[in-house]
Amino acid sequence: MLRLDRAPMGWNSWDCYGAAVTEDTVRANAKYMADHLKDAGYEYVVVDIQWYEPGSENNEYHPFADLCMDEYGRLLPAPNRFPSAEGGKGFKPLADYVHSLGLKFGIHIMRGIPRGAVSRNTPVLGTDGICARDIAKTASICVWNTDNYGVDPTKKGARAYYDSIFALYASWGVDFIKCDDICRELPHEEEELVMLSEALMNCGRDMVLSLSPGPAIIDKSEVYKKTGNMWRITDDFWDDWKLLYAMFERAEKWSIHTGPGHYPDADMLPVGAIRQVYDKDAWTAFTENEQITMMLLWCVLRSPLMIGGEMTKNDDFTLDLLTNKGLMDMHKLSRHAHQVYRRHEGDNEIILWTAVRADEDGCGYNGQYVVVFNADGEDAKIKVDPAELELTITPDMKVTDIMTGDEISFDDGIAVAKHCGRGFLITFR
Amino acid sequence: MLRLDRAPMGWNSWDCYGAAVTEDTVRANAKYMADHLKDAGYEYVVVDIQWYEPGSENNEYHPFADLCMDEYGRLLPAPNRFPSAEGGKGFKPLADYVHSLGLKFGIHIMRGIPRGAVSRNTPVLGTDGICARDIAKTASICVWNTDNYGVDPTKKGARAYYDSIFALYASWGVDFIKCDDICRELPHEEEELVMLSEALMNCGRDMVLSLSPGPAIIDKSEVYKKTGNMWRITDDFWDDWKLLYAMFERAEKWSIHTGPGHYPDADMLPVGAIRQVYDKDAWTAFTENEQITMMLLWCVLRSPLMIGGEMTKNDDFTLDLLTNKGLMDMHKLSRHAHQVYRRHEGDNEIILWTAVRADEDGCGYNGQYVVVFNADGEDAKIKVDPAELELTITPDMKVTDIMTGDEISFDDGIAVAKHCGRGFLITFR
Amino acid sequence: MLRLDRAPMGWNSWDCYGAAVTEDTVRANAKYMADHLKDAGYEYVVVDIQWYEPGSENNEYHPFADLCMDEYGRLLPAPNRFPSAEGGKGFKPLADYVHSLGLKFGIHIMRGIPRGAVSRNTPVLGTDGICARDIAKTASICVWNTDNYGVDPTKKGARAYYDSIFALYASWGVDFIKCDDICRELPHEEEELVMLSEALMNCGRDMVLSLSPGPAIIDKSEVYKKTGNMWRITDDFWDDWKLLYAMFERAEKWSIHTGPGHYPDADMLPVGAIRQVYDKDAWTAFTENEQITMMLLWCVLRSPLMIGGEMTKNDDFTLDLLTNKGLMDMHKLSRHAHQVYRRHEGDNEIILWTAVRADEDGCGYNGQYVVVFNADGEDAKIKVDPAELELTITPDMKVTDIMTGDEISFDDGIAVAKHCGRGFLITFR
Amino acid sequence: MLRLDRAPMGWNSWDCYGAAVTEDTVRANAKYMADHLKDAGYEYVVVDIQWYEPGSENNEYHPFADLCMDEYGRLLPAPNRFPSAEGGKGFKPLADYVHSLGLKFGIHIMRGIPRGAVSRNTPVLGTDGICARDIAKTASICVWNTDNYGVDPTKKGARAYYDSIFALYASWGVDFIKCDDICRELPHEEEELVMLSEALMNCGRDMVLSLSPGPAIIDKSEVYKKTGNMWRITDDFWDDWKLLYAMFERAEKWSIHTGPGHYPDADMLPVGAIRQVYDKDAWTAFTENEQITMMLLWCVLRSPLMIGGEMTKNDDFTLDLLTNKGLMDMHKLSRHAHQVYRRHEGDNEIILWTAVRADEDGCGYNGQYVVVFNADGEDAKIKVDPAELELTITPDMKVTDIMTGDEISFDDGIAVAKHCGRGFLITFR
Repeated sequence: MLRLDRAPMGWNSWDCYGAAVTEDTVRANAKYMADHLKDAGYEYVVVDIQWYEPGSENNEYHPFADLCMDEYGRLLPAPNRFPSAEGGKGFKPLADYVHSLGLKFGIHIMRGIPRGAVSRNTPVLGTDGICARDIAKTASICVWNTDNYGVDPTKKGARAYYDSIFALYASWGVDFIKCDDICRELPHEEEELVMLSEALMNCGRDMVLSLSPGPAIIDKSEVYKKTGNMWRITDDFWDDWKLLYAMFERAEKWSIHTGPGHYPDADMLPVGAIRQVYDKDAWTAFTENEQITMMLLWCVLRSPLMIGGEMTKNDDFTLDLLTNKGLMDMHKLSRHAHQVYRRHEGDNEIILWTAVRADEDGCGYNGQYVVVFNADGEDAKIKVDPAELELTITPDMKVTDIMTGDEISFDDGIAVAKHCGRGFLITFR
Repeated sequence: MLRLDRAPMGWNSWDCYGAAVTEDTVRANAKYMADHLKDAGYEYVVVDIQWYEPGSENNEYHPFADLCMDEYGRLLPAPNRFPSAEGGKGFKPLADYVHSLGLKFGIHIMRGIPRGAVSRNTPVLGTDGICARDIAKTASICVWNTDNYGVDPTKKGARAYYDSIFALYASWGVDFIKCDDICRELPHEEEELVMLSEALMNCGRDMVLSLSPGPAIIDKSEVYKKTGNMWRITDDFWDDWKLLYAMFERAEKWSIHTGPGHYPDADMLPVGAIRQVYDKDAWTAFTENEQITMMLLWCVLRSPLMIGGEMTKNDDFTLDLLTNKGLMDMHKLSRHAHQVYRRHEGDNEIILWTAVRADEDGCGYNGQYVVVFNADGEDAKIKVDPAELELTITPDMKVTDIMTGDEISFDDGIAVAKHCGRGFLITFR
Repeated sequence: MLRLDRAPMGWNSWDCYGAAVTEDTVRANAKYMADHLKDAGYEYVVVDIQWYEPGSENNEYHPFADLCMDEYGRLLPAPNRFPSAEGGKGFKPLADYVHSLGLKFGIHIMRGIPRGAVSRNTPVLGTDGICARDIAKTASICVWNTDNYGVDPTKKGARAYYDSIFALYASWGVDFIKCDDICRELPHEEEELVMLSEALMNCGRDMVLSLSPGPAIIDKSEVYKKTGNMWRITDDFWDDWKLLYAMFERAEKWSIHTGPGHYPDADMLPVGAIRQVYDKDAWTAFTENEQITMMLLWCVLRSPLMIGGEMTKNDDFTLDLLTNKGLMDMHKLSRHAHQVYRRHEGDNEIILWTAVRADEDGCGYNGQYVVVFNADGEDAKIKVDPAELELTITPDMKVTDIMTGDEISFDDGIAVAKHCGRGFLITFR
Repeated sequence: MLRLDRAPMGWNSWDCYGAAVTEDTVRANAKYMADHLKDAGYEYVVVDIQWYEPGSENNEYHPFADLCMDEYGRLLPAPNRFPSAEGGKGFKPLADYVHSLGLKFGIHIMRGIPRGAVSRNTPVLGTDGICARDIAKTASICVWNTDNYGVDPTKKGARAYYDSIFALYASWGVDFIKCDDICRELPHEEEELVMLSEALMNCGRDMVLSLSPGPAIIDKSEVYKKTGNMWRITDDFWDDWKLLYAMFERAEKWSIHTGPGHYPDADMLPVGAIRQVYDKDAWTAFTENEQITMMLLWCVLRSPLMIGGEMTKNDDFTLDLLTNKGLMDMHKLSRHAHQVYRRHEGDNEIILWTAVRADEDGCGYNGQYVVVFNADGEDAKIKVDPAELELTITPDMKVTDIMTGDEISFDDGIAVAKHCGRGFLITFR
């Protein structure tokens, strides 16, 4: 797999534009990212599902829509939505623009081959007469979208088909593939995933592979590590406390599967101006405290950070939270993160995470993160005992709040608001 | 819970004597431990199941046997097997002896109340006329042993009964309770466990609480942490490669639940002269390589280390392995241990674990453990890439084999025998 | 198996007296049966559970109560409840009385051996030193009653124990055994059932064997046929429409398993003065229509008819219903009964059953039963089409209402009240 | 539902020609049926799956093949295989020919609408602009064939589509529809089945509706009765003893659901020259005894009898068996059939069925069928006791072997060969 220094960070068009994002919007968000978020580490600009569907309007799909594709059944951006793709240029012009900003460009794909290609029986590029019907997998369909059939890995020409699409994407300059209808489809589609992943890794261009949708299957963790850079541990995540609350349990189970270049993915961050395709005034329903909880959990776990909102509408809170120095450091340097305990104390449900903090040079550890969440109950003063972390804190060791930089002491108890959390860094001598 | 510095280490009579251990043997093993193993950290001497059964012969139980008990239905050591218990003195004389050696004394109990006490309807000590039949739980029995009924936590007198037995054990000087028929019986017996644990913690004497049998239920990890110091993550473990091989998966799942005073327990170490009750010449069927695999996994995971064999018959290999300085250090100082990957490389199945190494004073970390197992296939040279641990090894950092102390380099690949493993310590600058 | 002419009919003490029936009451009900029900076919007088428990008060059991038993661990009637049993005479005097009325006598037993016998380790009669502990099955208990342990069929002496109890019951003159904790315990207790049944069939006296509790397991129908004369197809049935409504589905599934001497058992009839042990004025909560539904279903299915109420308090409706000539004939002569359909017609749920009617001499069939139930909705006029029964009704064939004897015609539709049913006999030319 | 006098009998092209039958072959088999089988009751000539696929070769389907259809997405016979269909005449000429022989004509269909129609988005006949994509059900596909998508019953135009295809089939003169991908797809496709069945019943022509594939779901028996005339109780049945042996259990469960016009269907009879599409010399692997077992079970159960072999190659045994007078009578007159018992006797597994025999005029019963099977073990003499049937056989009652007409007596035991059966008729006085 492609080795990455940290979990991917960027923007994805789904939470704000569903299946209907347009080139203008992508360019505007890329520009905003370059101006305001690049320094904090964000770099991927990802066009989500159905960029090949001329009639897309929102988060719903049109069943059996006619899709733009070339003579080899390879999907192409719909020129009415992506004008620079006109004349068969694909995403090359848009990717060039993104690259010109010092950023990277990504697209979404569905596992398999378009049903329209099967209907027309288009030839598979690079084969001697093998056509779409020869490789389509009869009974393998996505249950929530009609664009594709699966590809049967046992059929001659199957790998050639995947080679052909990744060659096309490489020629456009794509840096990131979010592949859908595959992550939670294991084990029955495992062979197709392996074939797809190998084709991508051999296409001649480095591309991150992101597997969707979740929930991923824990017993298949080694398969995900081998084939993908990130994989969704949850079904679609939105701005609802119940979903965020449920993420603690998923994060606990998946924490040990984080490593260099492979990251359990808690899904996009539904912050700021999401759901724009329905309402230009729409805004996340998460409270500020809930957003802090989310960022603390995603960062200590080292989940990918893909912003879901229309970034150009970010308010100060949103931008500050997304670029908070202490959070970004934890996202980069957290190692061996895991939940320490989850228990009721009085009327509160307290969840404690810890992680050690790597030296920037990777030659040791210089501190330890402690993140405490108030997952249920009212605002509370919470007791954190370093002994429960098997740590001794001596007077010459500093404890700071990672988001504010303030020095604190565990001796007095930690004030944590309802549905909020706080993160601390204990710096070793 | 009782806070412990490290996972309990000691000896348990089951693997060598089943339900039939006698006082002489316990004394001899305690003496051996004091002489040969105490310095390495071993301290608990534990008398396993049915010390109250005069007729015990081996690992089989006599159904519905008549058990030694006092007028309150509290079990007493069978004097024919434990002569010093004669005259109602219980385990006090034996515990005194163990303490005199600088060691600690433990016993096994079954959850619940003796069926014989229910049959005689003995009074519950400290209550006003409540008797055994008032608190016995009608349909709660152990499926593999007929000694006890469960105790119904909703019944008046139930807690008093548990208070009465722990008061007795405290008066004897017991330091360690291995409670059986309870660990894998969650969630349906969860309330009885909580009651039992609270009674123990309030008995006035510090006692380790060990929960058996396994496999423990992962979704109940917080219950185990709250009630016990160690809990079995497996059914009875014996000297069979298949069982050892299966432990990798259990260890992976449970690794994040290790902490100060609460340890997932991979069960006794079936080393040396086990099964003595059947054959005085019996010896573990594990190869030396398999025993090394076991010790490496138990120590990096920080599982309790309870020796299962008749220690006085230890050969040099066994004693050396059990007291190896590098292993003992890892068992004490390993933190945040977890499996990094498990994958096939050529004909071998390779499992890699890592952990950071705490400073002795708990104020930081001074190195990182890497343990590599060759879990399937023949002897092999295995490639270990520090980058997969997100580590950089500079020339001024030392890498040593923890069992031999030899310096090594990962650059050349690591020779690991079939079914064996090797552990390394990377020392930070 | 004992061959019977029809499904057993009689009285059982459970619905009115729970575990606390006394000799006086049994005698009074036997006398009443002889006077008022014997001519209709009722003949079994059955003493239900815990006749050996001196302290029984109602439908609740006293856990771990001391039970009356002989030196071989065989239970004996509690003399304080059954005075004629004094002096070790057992049920012989009471059975003699029942026989003197021209009736038959039955008792209830639990599978297995008393826990008290195991506690005392009583010898098994007819063996050379085998005792209760040798044959008790360690982990086989009834989850709702503490009287017994199971008996392990693989142990020497197990069969001898069952032989010994049936020999005792035969010496008393018992004609009917209702064995509990066995019917729905298949398949894990199947071998104990087979052993018990064989012991009973070889005891030298004809006894009906009734298996309880339900629901029986449909895939084990051949086991029930081989071992028992009747088996419960339902958990305890009481005077609640929901339970009666649910019986239609059970009856449909079990209908094909009725045959000579083996009858699926829909449980006792909770009619008249039930629950006497709690309230002398208690009366069934079933409406008259519901009771008619019950009797029609039980009779067409040929379920055993065991009256549950204190019969001496029967009112006219109850006695008339229980002895209705047309119902009794159907119960005796119904053959090949099965549900024809169950469907919604307008607001009603209609269930139609049919059966052919045997000649008394068994040499042919002289008519066909049709039973129509209005299982949901209000009173309705229901269309019954003989063609759905694959029957042609010619003018010279008579159709009568089996409960009133009135001639009717299907042409006009059949008036059936809510939650009621009507049965018809089509007499062939 | 269409009321039928007896379970459908006829011929189906699948077992001999798979998806590749041609007009010549159908005509030849129809002619043979008229000449040799019509008198015995056979009348339906059914063209099985993919008559609309020009390229069909055998029992395998070509995924995503181009199918013949009209401008409304309604499938048409492939003229290269059915020349008389040329010019849009459909099956009318072939049906006319079959009718001219005094027989009836049937075809196979798949639930739903052709994927090709969805691809072209053909209009739905009789609607104002509704097209295929409006009614196709996104995620409803057949897992073993790619011809169709399901139709979504909640969509406007869905019923109109089904009306349009049955109008076409009625115009051709179709008498029998075998609908596939629907029987075992309950409950999730129940609404589509109901809609389809209603459309068929309202199309203006009587057509038998046969539901496939099995196994049908027993809890949905009333749905099948309401919507279909016959439904498959098994997956595809072939000439393999294991499949035949397994049918006993299915037949037992479904026996009570047989009635006028609705028949549990044990599938085609794989007799004679089956698998012709692979090998012109192919012949059933069933022994003669196994074929007798099959015919006895199908006939007593009143399963439809659809011959699977190329009839023109029938040998004497096959033709005689298929037309045996006693079997045909039992198939027509059996009523209330059910299994009596299934048990081991010595080394044999004996299965006994019974049914009563209706008068031809439907006004009573004139005899009783008894069928005994030797389902496991060697040839044996089997004891049949009329008392187990609750029958008395007097000297003036005749017992005959239904296949030979020979009089027999149960007193002597019945010789039954291994894997064979014998059927008897007890004629009432």
